[in-house]
Amino acid sequence: MNTRESTTPSSPARTLADPDTPFAVVDVHTVRRNVARLRDRADRLAVTLRPHVKTAKSLDVAALLHSGTPYPVTVSTLAEAEAFADGGYTDITYAVGIDPHKLPRVVALLRRGVALRVLLDSAEQASCVAEASRQAGIPVPAQIEIDCDGHRGGLKPDDPALLTIGRVLHDAGCLDGVLTHAGESYFAYTAEEQRLAAKNERDTAVAAAERLRAAGLPVNVVSVGSTPTAHAAEDLTGVTELRAGNYVFFDLVMAGLGVCRAEDIALSVVVTVIGHRPECGWIMTDGGWMAMSRDRGTAAQPQDQGYGLVTDLAGHLVPGLVMSAASQEHGTLTARDGAALPDLPVGTRLRILPNHACATAAQHRGYHIVDGSRPGGPAPAIEAFWERVTGW
Amino acid sequence: MNTRESTTPSSPARTLADPDTPFAVVDVHTVRRNVARLRDRADRLAVTLRPHVKTAKSLDVAALLHSGTPYPVTVSTLAEAEAFADGGYTDITYAVGIDPHKLPRVVALLRRGVALRVLLDSAEQASCVAEASRQAGIPVPAQIEIDCDGHRGGLKPDDPALLTIGRVLHDAGCLDGVLTHAGESYFAYTAEEQRLAAKNERDTAVAAAERLRAAGLPVNVVSVGSTPTAHAAEDLTGVTELRAGNYVFFDLVMAGLGVCRAEDIALSVVVTVIGHRPECGWIMTDGGWMAMSRDRGTAAQPQDQGYGLVTDLAGHLVPGLVMSAASQEHGTLTARDGAALPDLPVGTRLRILPNHACATAAQHRGYHIVDGSRPGGPAPAIEAFWERVTGW
Repeated sequence: MNTRESTTPSSPARTLADPDTPFAVVDVHTVRRNVARLRDRADRLAVTLRPHVKTAKSLDVAALLHSGTPYPVTVSTLAEAEAFADGGYTDITYAVGIDPHKLPRVVALLRRGVALRVLLDSAEQASCVAEASRQAGIPVPAQIEIDCDGHRGGLKPDDPALLTIGRVLHDAGCLDGVLTHAGESYFAYTAEEQRLAAKNERDTAVAAAERLRAAGLPVNVVSVGSTPTAHAAEDLTGVTELRAGNYVFFDLVMAGLGVCRAEDIALSVVVTVIGHRPECGWIMTDGGWMAMSRDRGTAAQPQDQGYGLVTDLAGHLVPGLVMSAASQEHGTLTARDGAALPDLPVGTRLRILPNHACATAAQHRGYHIVDGSRPGGPAPAIEAFWERVTGW
Repeated sequence: MNTRESTTPSSPARTLADPDTPFAVVDVHTVRRNVARLRDRADRLAVTLRPHVKTAKSLDVAALLHSGTPYPVTVSTLAEAEAFADGGYTDITYAVGIDPHKLPRVVALLRRGVALRVLLDSAEQASCVAEASRQAGIPVPAQIEIDCDGHRGGLKPDDPALLTIGRVLHDAGCLDGVLTHAGESYFAYTAEEQRLAAKNERDTAVAAAERLRAAGLPVNVVSVGSTPTAHAAEDLTGVTELRAGNYVFFDLVMAGLGVCRAEDIALSVVVTVIGHRPECGWIMTDGGWMAMSRDRGTAAQPQDQGYGLVTDLAGHLVPGLVMSAASQEHGTLTARDGAALPDLPVGTRLRILPNHACATAAQHRGYHIVDGSRPGGPAPAIEAFWERVTGW
């Protein structure tokens, strides 16, 4: 997976003008700035930062987050856990409720010396984890998922099942902690709402931990996080670690929430103009939903950004131009807010900033890497090609 | 790419109960039925069928469409063209407007003896194709894209540019034909609307061809097609070939249009129940948008099917159950139409039928293959694992 030295197999490409389009680009200068911002916040809040690697799914991108020493990470699949274990990461939280069928792979990672922590919210799962631990002779560290905002899974902190599950895990030596995720913060449109979401996320996780402790069930980890709440939290007393993933790349959904600016978006997709329909007000490109994903996260926001905003190859926004429609391999660009459709001949290359970095990144097997801190002409130099972890 | 003998690298899986979820499944029995249906239509309409391989992107699936002899295909990327050329296919239409930067790869395929036909709708592209042909000493066969319904690219048949472009191509020995795609037929909700869309698609393509011929510009290929119009066309006089892609797998969008039934959908995704939120009416699974894609094509239809309908592992619909929401690796199932939420314990495996087969298939590196014609128990046997072509 670690292919820092290569570009694409077929081309010795040197700038963004060279590889055939569409392709994904990551600006490491922007990543470094985003990463430093949240690391500073975590330091001030006195919590461990446990980045979620599900957005970039890249050992190379993950290496930008530290100085040579693997650190705690969160993963969304066992394939990520296995790839990051291969890359030397030894403290991994698999933050999707555990399917008991997957426990053999969890145990295999534990036997390799990887502290792989699983998540669950039912007595059925707790019994399976306890049984697998006994059979393997290794306790599987398990965190109880807590629901802080009705987003998806988890127990409310006052759910009677919390103590039942905690006891089953504790008796098997498996109880590791509690974890919550303020998924509804993606719909918190003001700084104040985001602060309240962060406070609620913290309060809920701490309440669950305190309830377990009051019942004599020791809790080590109290884990919270989402990209909006991680950037809004003011006090994380009682929390031990903060998770966030999207912030490494950011995207238009996060910009729409005010968590970042458009210029903080590190991921884009390079496309080429392949036609014009002036009578319809359309510029056609070779970047469709296969390159951008079908994600339309900004459709629910006050400013719908279509399939993405458009920049030139150097990364400067083209005012008023938006990718408004997509077929599999066709994109349609249109002008809005009274902007004139710019004159972009066939062959012109553009970059599209995505709605949702996690979804757009997943459409590509890797990233062409540029460094926006280096002085460059209209087509930035490609420094490397970094592959993604795929599958489950 | 051709890995008929293997299953996943890590597991000697034998039934759909074995591989870790989520994963994509294709029922070859259903594919064969879908393929025979359209082949019969094409035979009756006396046109060549040129399937679009962009949906399955698999040489193994493509092999189900013939009896050992490669046939004309349509592709959506040069990566598909190259993979199918490697697989012995020698007559390929690349049905996305050509980016001149990609012409070296086109010429390389032509030099290998592959009749790779490109598409264009501008004088700029025609000049580039003519120039590349002269430089290479091989004419690049080019088709002029015709717009029949305002869907995306193409020229209206009466556009003055049609003859200009035709002349440039003809003079360089490149003029191969005309091609149109009734993309708006995806919004034709009655059989009559679909018949009219098919008639309009045919009439428009033939009108463009006749106009070129009247100007002394010979046209060989008159190509039409989309899955809805291919199944609705009653007369294709003047048309030489019919394209369609989605029909190999079909999906809920096509079922919503009445082009197929739910039981004709050959692609599904196997997921596992990982939790319950009875107070919310939710069953949680480990199949989110990473496994299904973000495509919500049925949202625009009279019956919105969420992220997909649910079947048991044997493929029988679970009445009233729908995948109504998705996070990256979480799916939410809910009951509708007053149906009771079924009792599906943690660990239960289900299959999700997709909105849009092209988009869902693209989230997976390949397909576990089952054969619905064989008598089976609750968990069908896995016959093979077939890989997909990826990238551009």
